[in-house]
Amino acid sequence: MKRLAILGSTGSIGQSTLSIVESYPDRFSVATLAAGRNIDSAFEQTLRWHPRLVSLATEELASELASRLRAAGITDTEVLWGSGGSVACATHPDVNFVVSAIVGVAGLEATHAAILAGKPIGLANKECMVAAGEILTRTARAGNVPLLPIDSEHNAIHQCMRVGVAAEVKQIWLTASGGPFRRLPLADFDCITPEQALKHPTWVMGRRITIDSATMLNKGLEVIEACRLFDLPPSQVRVTVHPQSTVHSLVEYVDGSILAQISVTDMRLPILYALAYPERPASNLTFNLAALSQLDFEQPDFARFPCLRLAYEAAQKGGEHPIALNAADEVAVEAFLDRRIPFNGIPRTIEEVLERTPTSHPETIAGVLAADSQARERAREAVQQAATRV
Amino acid sequence: MKRLAILGSTGSIGQSTLSIVESYPDRFSVATLAAGRNIDSAFEQTLRWHPRLVSLATEELASELASRLRAAGITDTEVLWGSGGSVACATHPDVNFVVSAIVGVAGLEATHAAILAGKPIGLANKECMVAAGEILTRTARAGNVPLLPIDSEHNAIHQCMRVGVAAEVKQIWLTASGGPFRRLPLADFDCITPEQALKHPTWVMGRRITIDSATMLNKGLEVIEACRLFDLPPSQVRVTVHPQSTVHSLVEYVDGSILAQISVTDMRLPILYALAYPERPASNLTFNLAALSQLDFEQPDFARFPCLRLAYEAAQKGGEHPIALNAADEVAVEAFLDRRIPFNGIPRTIEEVLERTPTSHPETIAGVLAADSQARERAREAVQQAATRV
Repeated sequence: MKRLAILGSTGSIGQSTLSIVESYPDRFSVATLAAGRNIDSAFEQTLRWHPRLVSLATEELASELASRLRAAGITDTEVLWGSGGSVACATHPDVNFVVSAIVGVAGLEATHAAILAGKPIGLANKECMVAAGEILTRTARAGNVPLLPIDSEHNAIHQCMRVGVAAEVKQIWLTASGGPFRRLPLADFDCITPEQALKHPTWVMGRRITIDSATMLNKGLEVIEACRLFDLPPSQVRVTVHPQSTVHSLVEYVDGSILAQISVTDMRLPILYALAYPERPASNLTFNLAALSQLDFEQPDFARFPCLRLAYEAAQKGGEHPIALNAADEVAVEAFLDRRIPFNGIPRTIEEVLERTPTSHPETIAGVLAADSQARERAREAVQQAATRV
Repeated sequence: MKRLAILGSTGSIGQSTLSIVESYPDRFSVATLAAGRNIDSAFEQTLRWHPRLVSLATEELASELASRLRAAGITDTEVLWGSGGSVACATHPDVNFVVSAIVGVAGLEATHAAILAGKPIGLANKECMVAAGEILTRTARAGNVPLLPIDSEHNAIHQCMRVGVAAEVKQIWLTASGGPFRRLPLADFDCITPEQALKHPTWVMGRRITIDSATMLNKGLEVIEACRLFDLPPSQVRVTVHPQSTVHSLVEYVDGSILAQISVTDMRLPILYALAYPERPASNLTFNLAALSQLDFEQPDFARFPCLRLAYEAAQKGGEHPIALNAADEVAVEAFLDRRIPFNGIPRTIEEVLERTPTSHPETIAGVLAADSQARERAREAVQQAATRV
């Protein structure tokens, strides 16, 4: 029985994870839940799953949840808060598998603590790997802790990697839908509205990741994540645009064989894979291959998607650059959604921040978080200046 | 070092195998060569590779080859002939890997003898598996002898099978190019000439297999081969038409993941895989994924390709039926190439022979060969009658 800590339980991946637990009660159970600010959802989840611990973002939210739980007669769930609460959820002795699905670097300390505590990780938080991938993978290797990717692309790579050994991998290919603006004339990019950018052609996801898909910065983050997870240089991590999102990624071996993974676009599938690995339980998440008619592929257009180029450059530089890339993007996307900068302002902001990023290599989680804060500060300044110019 | 017996050395697969040996002299060497009637090619190969044994179809051919070799100063290669010669090549003590690439049931005894002698097999002779698959796989399992498929589809399945365990396989999908007549109006099928049928859209192969691709009987034989090799019922072996022959086959797992193998259409790749398994040596047989633009898939049309339906029916019945399917097809294809029957006469001949095939299950290689002879006799009668009707 896998007894789960779900970090980010009220988010999209957290909810999908709970639906998998619901479907496989003899395989998985819930030990702890770490949520953020969504107290209503955290309350419902606690009623349903009776975790040992539940954690919210702040002490105030935790007090309110504790009151509500008492009123509902739940007395055996401890309510915690903040980063300490997430770490407690991640490292609770009952937990033997951690789903790391807190969005952004907020999940970093808890994920690191879980690895230090020797808990196998299902990793859905790509920002953790982008910002602190070198530290996390080094810690995981030292403790022989499995890191199982839940991102659909990396999950596909993980599967395709089983058909050979690491030294036989020539390169890997992450597929990208290309987002909603794959065919939009470049001249129209400055007029893209948040509403247009939030319409993703194939996946239903959170707001930031949807915008990141439209700029392809998301694919850039995945390139960096893949470098860290699979110990490959950026030159061996390629991107191919595949609008149907049917092939989730591919691994090319030195002998010339390419292995590809195909499935429905439903995050429950990579979650189930990570949770049950190395087993494959039967599911009803069936891809109807008999109905498949066409798969298209094309090369990514780096002129159209400067965020992808910036990500490769940051991956090459390493150290603080991936941290700054991620932090600057988060600030820029928020500014775009608030209509403070145009769509093209996102790569401009990131590029400005990267130009001002030192070439240091943080060796601790605290160092990563400090670099993240500094990059955010620089990004807010850049956004402010851009807004003033407008 | 793998010291090879190459059964069928002058055929297409045999020549490709020798080109692989040439490219990897530190991994592979030639121990024995069994050829058929192509004495010139067998002479050249013996000069180049200095095998311990070389075998030809008949005593006369063997005598002539022995004279030529003596004249060329080659005295350390023994020259044999016939079925006994092939068996000696397959079981020679120096041999530690056998490439079974004799076309048709002619390769059956030698392949069986190799398995009994405990030699790992690279299997390119699908007729062996179709006619005697139950006997061969039972023998191989009893002796723990690896059977590594060289047919590109089964080789792809073998690769994709490594991503899970057999019980987790829901079904497998063999891809089929659909041959040159995928779009031809059905009314025109009777007018198809041998020249038209010999033009395969994606693979360059021998004459019978090219015609078998045009009728899709080849895919039917592969369905039966897959049932035997991977121990699956016909209902779990599906066919999908994929005109580009880029995806070589797919494995669908019970969790919903589908793994696919992609590569160039070059038989040296599956040969290299089988020979080097479980390692993957680097090769220059690179598929340019960056240039990939479109993959098409469609369902096979059983009305257009009755041979495929007949193969599924024979697979379901088992025993003598797959033997008769293969034997009748070989006779019918020859008659078509000789312009004695029309293209549609091929499935008609097979169907007539299958209707007259008893439901026995031969338990020995001799029994398989007897059933094969009887089916050929019935097929020749059917062809004769059809020719008389015309």
